[in-house]
Amino acid sequence: MLNFKIEPVKKDFIDIAWKRLNSLTKPQGSLGRLEEIAARLVGIYEDPMPEIKKKAVLVFASDHGVTEEGVSAYPKEVTAQMVFNMLRGGAGINVLARHAGADVVVVDIGVDYDFGECKGLISKKVVKGAGNITKAPALSGSDAIKCIEIGIELVKEYHQKGYNLFAAGEMGIGNTTPSSAVVSVLTHSQVEEVTGKGTGIDEETFKRKIEVIKRAIKINKPNPSDPVDVLAKVGGPEIGAIAGVVLGCASLKIPVVIDGFISTAGALIAYCINPVVRDYIFASHNSVERGHKIALEFMGLKPLLDLNLRLGEGTGAAIVMTIIEAGLKIYKEMATFDEAGVSKSVK
Amino acid sequence: MLNFKIEPVKKDFIDIAWKRLNSLTKPQGSLGRLEEIAARLVGIYEDPMPEIKKKAVLVFASDHGVTEEGVSAYPKEVTAQMVFNMLRGGAGINVLARHAGADVVVVDIGVDYDFGECKGLISKKVVKGAGNITKAPALSGSDAIKCIEIGIELVKEYHQKGYNLFAAGEMGIGNTTPSSAVVSVLTHSQVEEVTGKGTGIDEETFKRKIEVIKRAIKINKPNPSDPVDVLAKVGGPEIGAIAGVVLGCASLKIPVVIDGFISTAGALIAYCINPVVRDYIFASHNSVERGHKIALEFMGLKPLLDLNLRLGEGTGAAIVMTIIEAGLKIYKEMATFDEAGVSKSVK
Repeated sequence: MLNFKIEPVKKDFIDIAWKRLNSLTKPQGSLGRLEEIAARLVGIYEDPMPEIKKKAVLVFASDHGVTEEGVSAYPKEVTAQMVFNMLRGGAGINVLARHAGADVVVVDIGVDYDFGECKGLISKKVVKGAGNITKAPALSGSDAIKCIEIGIELVKEYHQKGYNLFAAGEMGIGNTTPSSAVVSVLTHSQVEEVTGKGTGIDEETFKRKIEVIKRAIKINKPNPSDPVDVLAKVGGPEIGAIAGVVLGCASLKIPVVIDGFISTAGALIAYCINPVVRDYIFASHNSVERGHKIALEFMGLKPLLDLNLRLGEGTGAAIVMTIIEAGLKIYKEMATFDEAGVSKSVK
Repeated sequence: MLNFKIEPVKKDFIDIAWKRLNSLTKPQGSLGRLEEIAARLVGIYEDPMPEIKKKAVLVFASDHGVTEEGVSAYPKEVTAQMVFNMLRGGAGINVLARHAGADVVVVDIGVDYDFGECKGLISKKVVKGAGNITKAPALSGSDAIKCIEIGIELVKEYHQKGYNLFAAGEMGIGNTTPSSAVVSVLTHSQVEEVTGKGTGIDEETFKRKIEVIKRAIKINKPNPSDPVDVLAKVGGPEIGAIAGVVLGCASLKIPVVIDGFISTAGALIAYCINPVVRDYIFASHNSVERGHKIALEFMGLKPLLDLNLRLGEGTGAAIVMTIIEAGLKIYKEMATFDEAGVSKSVK
């Protein structure tokens, strides 16, 4: 099921983009990463004059049994409470997505709360919270695959509705803990190197968190060369769904903006399934979570912003959507030297 | 004339802002620099719920006699050609200002070209090009002050028209050369440390540029403790006008976004006239020009973006206007824990 084809971005289109970028009324390359963004978009969309139509931030919410081990500064109930906050438009991601002109799609992929009929919520619950990874796997193998498939399918569905730029966000109390486990195993890094203070825990909790992650890896023995096994053993539902979003976007040749540490852990799963997905990913920001940088470097991705964010939800990705659009507008709307009658460089 | 009062931002308002920021549904401080932006805006506007109304990017265009020394990759004529390009909406700054919802105001402060009646151009020509600083001062002392006053007056005028967020940009072939001279003198840095490759010169031209700047400082003997003298001797009209914009914004308690190296050299003049202006400045991006960082650090400012930009015009500042608005929206539009019924941190 996960063995579908993902094509690398075609160099021909990238070349077309640079030819135009170099003809615009500015010193060559002087708009730096904005120009790189434009060239990548032309390559991804395979369109010399691409158009960003509708934009969506997919926010996957899930609970994590490992919160029983006291690894978070917030009680588990906050996951469901924040889902309601997002549905009412009051969370950080709502504000920043509105700012970016993007729609927020809130998906229950594994919250341990019965939402019943809940207006605006996309119900795709696979489990009622992931297992406590210090005692059992997070997910069964088949549930892990189901989470990935849900991500892929949602991208397909929203693409059919006219969306062609996606961001992958999440909400889940305790989810930096499985993310650190996933990044540690897949990048062959020490747990200490990839574990941070999440939403803001004290030293004692931080030490416990590291010990918990080590225990989870020891007990579950995830196979580092099998990303789906890693997802099932020490990951979580939203991490799997985000992996699916990345795979889905890459297969449909649509750019996907990843957010902070958890979103990047999901992208890392996708990358380890098929490294070609990298061509379709925009890394948004450099999270305060230390494992984030390691995961990005492992994939060869360089984030666009560094604003000391550590909220998640897709907030950094939403801001970067505005930067991506700025890059595309430069490419499409600036005058060329010929059009403007401006003299070129004397060299 | 330049001795008007500039008040430091009031701590009371900053405290009000942080009280609200800490009550919003997110871990405290987790939106990093977006929260800092919001707190600063509340302080600057002295309003617990401030509103950004109209936004303007003021672009000051000028020529520089020092281009005779062969320090730029582009012929001098490009300054006037780019003014026309900006008036037609085809330059980088037009695209990025539109993206940010800001108006571009193009001001001729010292272009060596007779524009005559030219629709859309604000004519404030003080000189027809600054003097060749290897042979004479850039400006007379009275013209230097006139440039600063023009910046101040334009801010006043546009503030009366309802604008309350300004960016300071520029266009002027050769203007990284006087900017390096200004930054070298005012920050007591070696010329080599503050000189970069501008719009893209080769090694030979780069060496000549450094030599030219050293010669300009030696011949003109600017007084490092008199910023207006430094502006007159080795600066330029747009650098002075930008200093005026910064002084004008600070005196009216309006935030001002500075752009790259030249814009920051202008801000540095203002800072050396009155360091309190710092409270009102947002540093937008980390330019590729090496002297930029030194000037920002001298003022204690930290840029928000690092996108490898080196175009100038106000392009980085325009993008940062969108980030500043994002910060304010977070502050104004997010739900509080109480409003959303979300449990607070257990600690």
